[in-house]
Amino acid sequence: MSEVLIVGVGQTSVGEHWDYSLRELALHAIEAVIEDSGGLRPQALYVGNMLAPALSSQSHLATLVADFAGLRGVEATVVEAAGATGGVALRAGYLAVLSGQVDVALVVGVEKLSDRTASEVDAAIATASDSDYEAEQGLTQTAQAALLMQRYLHEFEVPEGAFAGFPVTAHANGASNPNAMFRKAIKPESYARAGMVSAPLNMFDIAPPADGAAAALLVRSELVPPKFPHKPVGIAASSVATDTLALHDRPDPLEFGAARHSVAQACQRAGIDLEQIDLFEVFDAYSIYTALSLEAAGFAERGQGWQWARDGAISLDGELPLMTFGGLKARGYPGGATGVYQVVEAVQQLRGQAGDNQVPDAEVALVQALGGPASTAATHVLRALD
Amino acid sequence: MSEVLIVGVGQTSVGEHWDYSLRELALHAIEAVIEDSGGLRPQALYVGNMLAPALSSQSHLATLVADFAGLRGVEATVVEAAGATGGVALRAGYLAVLSGQVDVALVVGVEKLSDRTASEVDAAIATASDSDYEAEQGLTQTAQAALLMQRYLHEFEVPEGAFAGFPVTAHANGASNPNAMFRKAIKPESYARAGMVSAPLNMFDIAPPADGAAAALLVRSELVPPKFPHKPVGIAASSVATDTLALHDRPDPLEFGAARHSVAQACQRAGIDLEQIDLFEVFDAYSIYTALSLEAAGFAERGQGWQWARDGAISLDGELPLMTFGGLKARGYPGGATGVYQVVEAVQQLRGQAGDNQVPDAEVALVQALGGPASTAATHVLRALD
Repeated sequence: MSEVLIVGVGQTSVGEHWDYSLRELALHAIEAVIEDSGGLRPQALYVGNMLAPALSSQSHLATLVADFAGLRGVEATVVEAAGATGGVALRAGYLAVLSGQVDVALVVGVEKLSDRTASEVDAAIATASDSDYEAEQGLTQTAQAALLMQRYLHEFEVPEGAFAGFPVTAHANGASNPNAMFRKAIKPESYARAGMVSAPLNMFDIAPPADGAAAALLVRSELVPPKFPHKPVGIAASSVATDTLALHDRPDPLEFGAARHSVAQACQRAGIDLEQIDLFEVFDAYSIYTALSLEAAGFAERGQGWQWARDGAISLDGELPLMTFGGLKARGYPGGATGVYQVVEAVQQLRGQAGDNQVPDAEVALVQALGGPASTAATHVLRALD
Repeated sequence: MSEVLIVGVGQTSVGEHWDYSLRELALHAIEAVIEDSGGLRPQALYVGNMLAPALSSQSHLATLVADFAGLRGVEATVVEAAGATGGVALRAGYLAVLSGQVDVALVVGVEKLSDRTASEVDAAIATASDSDYEAEQGLTQTAQAALLMQRYLHEFEVPEGAFAGFPVTAHANGASNPNAMFRKAIKPESYARAGMVSAPLNMFDIAPPADGAAAALLVRSELVPPKFPHKPVGIAASSVATDTLALHDRPDPLEFGAARHSVAQACQRAGIDLEQIDLFEVFDAYSIYTALSLEAAGFAERGQGWQWARDGAISLDGELPLMTFGGLKARGYPGGATGVYQVVEAVQQLRGQAGDNQVPDAEVALVQALGGPASTAATHVLRALD
């Protein structure tokens, strides 16, 4: 059976790119991915972008990017599923290659947020919620995550500062990632002292919106030329699932059902169980998301996801390394590009090219992007080839 | 080899739906398509939408629609390529089914424009152009189409009123389409008297923005149950191609290169030539687009596409029926839903269920949606099964 391989990855650094436009960010990632794959040219381009229509008055972005990046003529499509956009874009490329209609697919996630004020960005991100019933009432994604965390703290016995280990680990890993937005380790004490943003979420519980672009080049296994700059990585499984868009429609808001379902489906499709996973690029937009995602995936019982934040368990040489290049918290959260960054980082791990961020003997990676409060979950299993 | 079949279609009427929101329009089309297919439930939903982020402050629309339509849990993705959105959404569903990962895919195009003023809608549609270099200068899609037509009239010998036959035919066909926005035939004299909008484009050269939702249900051929309410229609070929986003970057603005390329590729993939095409659902957003699309497809030489507008050539019993249910001009132009409407109408033709709009002995249909001035072209060949 055909397998879909990732034969190249590329990324820009994540941060506030005042000097680059949307198309320029995408171009830099595309130049990097094409060089990384030894010059292979794609036939189709899938652009994951969340907020260009709202923040840059630009729709039709995939055709613009294809044109600007010198890929004129290729098939080009924008795909969007809020925060899960990058993961859904990877799946679009994966399905295109698997279908046999596209031999080489380029997946690019790109986002440009820093041209707008923080409140404009917050409002744009809130369009991922139900605009008639949630955003309209002023409910931002952050306020919603705060409600979730409050509920979590109410339902379960959770010690003070229990979540600190998530951002502390993220920042420790981000410190050695040259592409991270924040390259500075933080101490648990800093977490304890951090200013409250939307109680009980403090500054370190929330990932920073950012600019960036990341890219991956996908090829069907039988088409991979024998000599390649880097060892290809296989997409062992791909799954997208959804839940209610609005949190208030769920019987149990603390259950990330779409995340649960898509992890189970991805593991089943890949023929693996959780024990075989060497690292998990989790969607740590908020530290409460990390805990709930660990529970949904099955790494923890209900109400116990926070226990992974204990010393060392999720660090690079721990039992289950998370956010290996800093995650959304320290690498940064470039909207629809985020899911593609996660894939790029997992590929670096599986190639053994993660440098100071290397997870020892990484062979199987779980990668998950979430849209809204896990209203959409895109989960992929990536595997190093033998 | 697997074939992808359309086993159900659904649509709302096109017009100003003051009483329905985006999600309700989508729901109506989904209820119709599920009933039309005998109750089949999809595993994946591809929503084609162009302007919800700009006009309705709603991203993440596919998950919202899945949730609201009672399809909670299914894979859901928004795809967008400006005016070509509906065609690109069909292709997304097609690739998903062809890949083997999705057995039943639901493609929904939905757009809601009437909540906003005409100038807000124009500005939103202009985001399909290059926002930094075109829209920013006030160049709307209509102004751009006017420039194209002006150039056409300058380059070629075209008699006065040569384009009249396009809207006259569209309105003749729209008159008997119960879902059309305009159900009234017009006379060539009306075209001659029509008010100028953006010279040389008059009111009848321009399709009206509208609200609407349309849907198609796709299944892999080997999975089609033996008893089905309606005879399935095959997707014989699918192709998406792009050109420069901006008109000013093209060596020849009167050459719709992406349209040419995608028609050639679709015909080659379907193993047909132009003579076998019984009807063409052309993207008549502007009558100049119709002429240029006919030339790009190869139905006319350069500078001669307007000749098809002569008496009877493109009517339902003519040599090449176009816009058989009224086209964008009379059925209406519901943004990203348009390409799905075209598919729904072609399926009705190939089933022999087009009623007063039936093209005699229709077996092969060409369907094309364009984004911007054919910056993106999505072309499909649909075929009645033996």
